[in-house]
Amino acid sequence: MAGKNVLIVYAHQSSGSFNAAAKDVAVKVLTEKGCTVDVSDLYEINFKATATVEDITGGVKDPDCFSYAEETKLAWEEDKLSSDIVKEQSKLKKADLVIFQFPMYWFSVPAIMKGWIDRVLTLGFAFSPEKRYSEGMFRDKKAILSFTTGSFESMFSPNAINGDMNVTLWPLQNGILHYCGFQVLGPQIFWAPAHVSRSDCSTMLDGWRARLQNLLNEQPIDFPLLEYFEKDTGFQLKPEIVELRATEELGISVGIHQGKKVPPNNQMRWHVKENRF
Amino acid sequence: MAGKNVLIVYAHQSSGSFNAAAKDVAVKVLTEKGCTVDVSDLYEINFKATATVEDITGGVKDPDCFSYAEETKLAWEEDKLSSDIVKEQSKLKKADLVIFQFPMYWFSVPAIMKGWIDRVLTLGFAFSPEKRYSEGMFRDKKAILSFTTGSFESMFSPNAINGDMNVTLWPLQNGILHYCGFQVLGPQIFWAPAHVSRSDCSTMLDGWRARLQNLLNEQPIDFPLLEYFEKDTGFQLKPEIVELRATEELGISVGIHQGKKVPPNNQMRWHVKENRF
Repeated sequence: MAGKNVLIVYAHQSSGSFNAAAKDVAVKVLTEKGCTVDVSDLYEINFKATATVEDITGGVKDPDCFSYAEETKLAWEEDKLSSDIVKEQSKLKKADLVIFQFPMYWFSVPAIMKGWIDRVLTLGFAFSPEKRYSEGMFRDKKAILSFTTGSFESMFSPNAINGDMNVTLWPLQNGILHYCGFQVLGPQIFWAPAHVSRSDCSTMLDGWRARLQNLLNEQPIDFPLLEYFEKDTGFQLKPEIVELRATEELGISVGIHQGKKVPPNNQMRWHVKENRF
Repeated sequence: MAGKNVLIVYAHQSSGSFNAAAKDVAVKVLTEKGCTVDVSDLYEINFKATATVEDITGGVKDPDCFSYAEETKLAWEEDKLSSDIVKEQSKLKKADLVIFQFPMYWFSVPAIMKGWIDRVLTLGFAFSPEKRYSEGMFRDKKAILSFTTGSFESMFSPNAINGDMNVTLWPLQNGILHYCGFQVLGPQIFWAPAHVSRSDCSTMLDGWRARLQNLLNEQPIDFPLLEYFEKDTGFQLKPEIVELRATEELGISVGIHQGKKVPPNNQMRWHVKENRF
């Protein structure tokens, strides 16, 4: 892993938090391994979360019917994005691995991190109609969600009140990370650190410390290739792929479940690539 | 519907946008129906999206290990929340229906709306360990997500590249709205208005206008009752519920799929309450 660049996008208000400790462990281990580690400490830099016209310097093309995606694409092409966005994009550009470290708020990332996603992953820079998913801009980069929950693991099962964690992960891992092409590593989930003993918290951090030793060599989660989908039918699975999978009891993924059973823990870890044809 | 209070939480930067038109249609129809309609225009009021210590006036209990949930709960109890949060909470308190109107950004709400969710739905005010889901604080209120997408509907199917829209809706509708007890009405999805003709946009708005006539009388989406889950086993389904459903081919919901097939369009509309025992 020596020589690799790592960006940690970090969102917690307090340096005394479990999230801070998890971030610090990552910085330490990866630096020791010879990586160059950069941290975007979003609360510390008071990162602007909201997608507004101020993200574009100079005038916009259509002020009467402002489209954030279109206007920021143009601004990116013309070097007119605001300096805080440019700064994050340049960190992201050189990163081989991006770690998102955050407390889960309302089954998703906190607003300040959603703001980083909304503002930094500009159309043109992070994706285009042609460069998405397995053909995505960042297909040479890896990314991982590392987060704490308020609930215990038992509550996030396919038989429990919060539902399958894999369903909650899908929009984040498929809809943001894989959408931009990232190779998505299995999430690092710290279950309810606020509700367990200090010793259990230490054990969780030890697990993270151990995993980090070899993190960059892990196999990413399997997503179907873009070429399995037919552009002319609105990116539906090609008939030959459906045919090849006809006797499979399980769908391809939690999102692309094909009306079949959901493959267990599909968004949690690498599985044998049974969906490659 | 006369006499009802409606709150529209609205997040678009431009008054010339499709989202603005959808919001305006809702204000007009519901006002004509005799409702009192309040709009929180988040970009217009420059709503603060980030959850910080400034949300609490006066000192916090544990500045060295700041927990946003715990500190804001305390601040809510002691009337120390910042005035912008208090203002939104007082609007929410009197609302019979909340409409969230937004463009989908990255398979979720824009950061400014996530900020409203993170900051306004305070522990104690919006939920507590005892008052969640079907026993939630807001079980006498209704809520609906009304949003535009960048992709066409075909891309959000169980056989397409973005995956089943129901999976994407689960964390929002179950994890936020139903979590607080809201009766969740089927989402109003405006598919890719930026990519269709002006006339197709008008047709979509006409559909919304028609639906609004009777919106408050719609049956909400069905979620399993809190009492179906066993607190002592981490809110897993009670054995007797599992037993009662043993011969069912489909799971209870897209999230609580029980390792079975996902019920089609489970998060889209009311279905016959086949999961009530």
